[in-house]
Amino acid sequence: MLCASVANYTMNEPFKFNIIARDKSSKARAGEWHTPHGPIRTPAFMPVGTNATVKALTPQQLKDCQVSVLICNAYHLHRRPGEKIVEQMGGLHKFMNWPGPILTDSGGFQVFSLSELTKVSDSGVEFKDPINGDTIMFTPEKVMAIQEALGADIIVQFDQPVAYPATYEATKEATLRSLKWAQACLKAKQRKDQMLLGIIQGGVFNDLRELSTKSLLDMGFQGLAIGGLSVGEGSELMFESIKGIRDLIPPELPVYLMGVGTPEDISGAIKLGIDLFDCVLPTRNGRNGFAFTAQGSLRIRNLQYQSDPAPLDAQCKCYTCANPPEIPGGRAGFSRSYLRHLFQSEEMLGPTLLSIHNTYYFQSLVKQIREKILGNA
Amino acid sequence: MLCASVANYTMNEPFKFNIIARDKSSKARAGEWHTPHGPIRTPAFMPVGTNATVKALTPQQLKDCQVSVLICNAYHLHRRPGEKIVEQMGGLHKFMNWPGPILTDSGGFQVFSLSELTKVSDSGVEFKDPINGDTIMFTPEKVMAIQEALGADIIVQFDQPVAYPATYEATKEATLRSLKWAQACLKAKQRKDQMLLGIIQGGVFNDLRELSTKSLLDMGFQGLAIGGLSVGEGSELMFESIKGIRDLIPPELPVYLMGVGTPEDISGAIKLGIDLFDCVLPTRNGRNGFAFTAQGSLRIRNLQYQSDPAPLDAQCKCYTCANPPEIPGGRAGFSRSYLRHLFQSEEMLGPTLLSIHNTYYFQSLVKQIREKILGNA
Repeated sequence: MLCASVANYTMNEPFKFNIIARDKSSKARAGEWHTPHGPIRTPAFMPVGTNATVKALTPQQLKDCQVSVLICNAYHLHRRPGEKIVEQMGGLHKFMNWPGPILTDSGGFQVFSLSELTKVSDSGVEFKDPINGDTIMFTPEKVMAIQEALGADIIVQFDQPVAYPATYEATKEATLRSLKWAQACLKAKQRKDQMLLGIIQGGVFNDLRELSTKSLLDMGFQGLAIGGLSVGEGSELMFESIKGIRDLIPPELPVYLMGVGTPEDISGAIKLGIDLFDCVLPTRNGRNGFAFTAQGSLRIRNLQYQSDPAPLDAQCKCYTCANPPEIPGGRAGFSRSYLRHLFQSEEMLGPTLLSIHNTYYFQSLVKQIREKILGNA
Repeated sequence: MLCASVANYTMNEPFKFNIIARDKSSKARAGEWHTPHGPIRTPAFMPVGTNATVKALTPQQLKDCQVSVLICNAYHLHRRPGEKIVEQMGGLHKFMNWPGPILTDSGGFQVFSLSELTKVSDSGVEFKDPINGDTIMFTPEKVMAIQEALGADIIVQFDQPVAYPATYEATKEATLRSLKWAQACLKAKQRKDQMLLGIIQGGVFNDLRELSTKSLLDMGFQGLAIGGLSVGEGSELMFESIKGIRDLIPPELPVYLMGVGTPEDISGAIKLGIDLFDCVLPTRNGRNGFAFTAQGSLRIRNLQYQSDPAPLDAQCKCYTCANPPEIPGGRAGFSRSYLRHLFQSEEMLGPTLLSIHNTYYFQSLVKQIREKILGNA
């Protein structure tokens, strides 16, 4: 194995990744990823707060949902309100009143999702702002400066993801460029109180994934993200890609699988040794009236729930399902009938209550898996 | 004075209206209006929960805003989800998980605001449903049946408000018809655990207001609402209309001024002896980015707040202005800079946080006035 020694990966204080327990029957592990804003108990799931807000939820509601760490987006926050304003307000944590750890995505995915790309070179990307048409240049150095101004605990390198499907040649070019940018980001990094993750690219080509992984490890990254998956290749290919590289990464390093995903994909990836996840599913589906439950997905707008007195999920302990029955003789939580009514009436409270439920559901999912790992170590 | 004796107005248990203190320098009074779901400490302000939800706020957030009583709308809930479903779910309190008192408006104002009115007679109103075009007939009896099925603590008679300006003749016709409907509502009333309010109409014509008031008192109503004001006549005419009738109403009866209003109008009306208010202002303005503060109105989208670290109102203790500074060294509450960012980004959290602030502001307003009355008795 091309693993460097553990000593090479000792993190700068206060960062530390302690593995508390390893599952006996899989590669799953339970860890504590220490950051300047407290520990992330892994495996962990990050709700997405693109614009420095997890849509529809207050920080208090996020805490009530047992959320411990959030992801925000450097590209979006650069565009609005601008990293200088966030910095002036005391950084992202103070700006959004979130006391726990925050990770910022570099914005690479967003930049390369824009159709109006004008120029990609090894030095960076030039593109048109989709709103005002301004020409913007994103370079590894600029992305690092943005993320340092924002001040998240964990930041990621600027990278070039590729769409799926992509040719081997196109994927190789983007993978090699991403490695150059990884090096440039490491060089540009100044703040000691942030931890920078390299991003493994390579599409669905195992040799490119391997090359990417080994190169990032050689550069000395203390934690890695896996990017460019969950973009349409399907769960099977995704798991294959993870398996192809997971053993190359020293177990002492935390590994973050970007943009994943469904409860099934998260459960499967944890067994392959993934520690951290993020996805818009809980809140986006919540806003659209879809609830995750132990019994499967539930579309609250369906007529069948019109006079259903049950909560979304009788087992769930979230505010939506189990807020105290304050009416004498009342039941806990909001009925499906009421929640359907809110969606039919296009009332904001509907998206809020389903986002609370789904967010709690995802937190419970990873928490329960963590407890199983601790019990099966 | 044409006041009946106090004994005539003894309310059915558990309803009771106790005046705790009377202001020495005005007609303001502090009271306790007991209902099956607890007391309303008057003067009180009801946030508007038209569709069985105060827009953007959870019941928990309403409680945190010190809200004690809500108003919902019988017409809207009849249309969606239908009073039968609410009844089947255990009534309005259980349906929306609101443990405190609820008042339902009859829907008269909404019905007469529709342009597609087809027929008004002494028996009721026939109109086209604005959504599906169905012909609907609203009669006093039907409106009572709807409100009894919904199960609010305090309900109001079906009435015919008039727009402002309106001719004397048109106003007189509507006033007389409203009195007939008041009698019909009293006759149709079956539930003993709901209190029915008569609605004083008469536009800005003092003789019609007087006629309406005296007639309702003769019918034996134990509490009165003042309708058809705050519809464009201006504060001065509104106060004149209230003054013209207030002394006709025995002081033992609670008086509710419908649809009022601004902090100034509320303060002024309390001095004239009004006990209860409702208005969409706090939440509607909140959703539109306007905040009420002790220093006046604040439009959060204004550029001047782009990097303003102050909360909306430094004196305010609401969650938006004063949630605990959980970041070491952080300040309490959300900055104007962050709130502006949320509105600029069209994030739901913006309307939610401003609705919380404004709702708290209105509750604090009436609470402070109540404390002054108690201190000046």
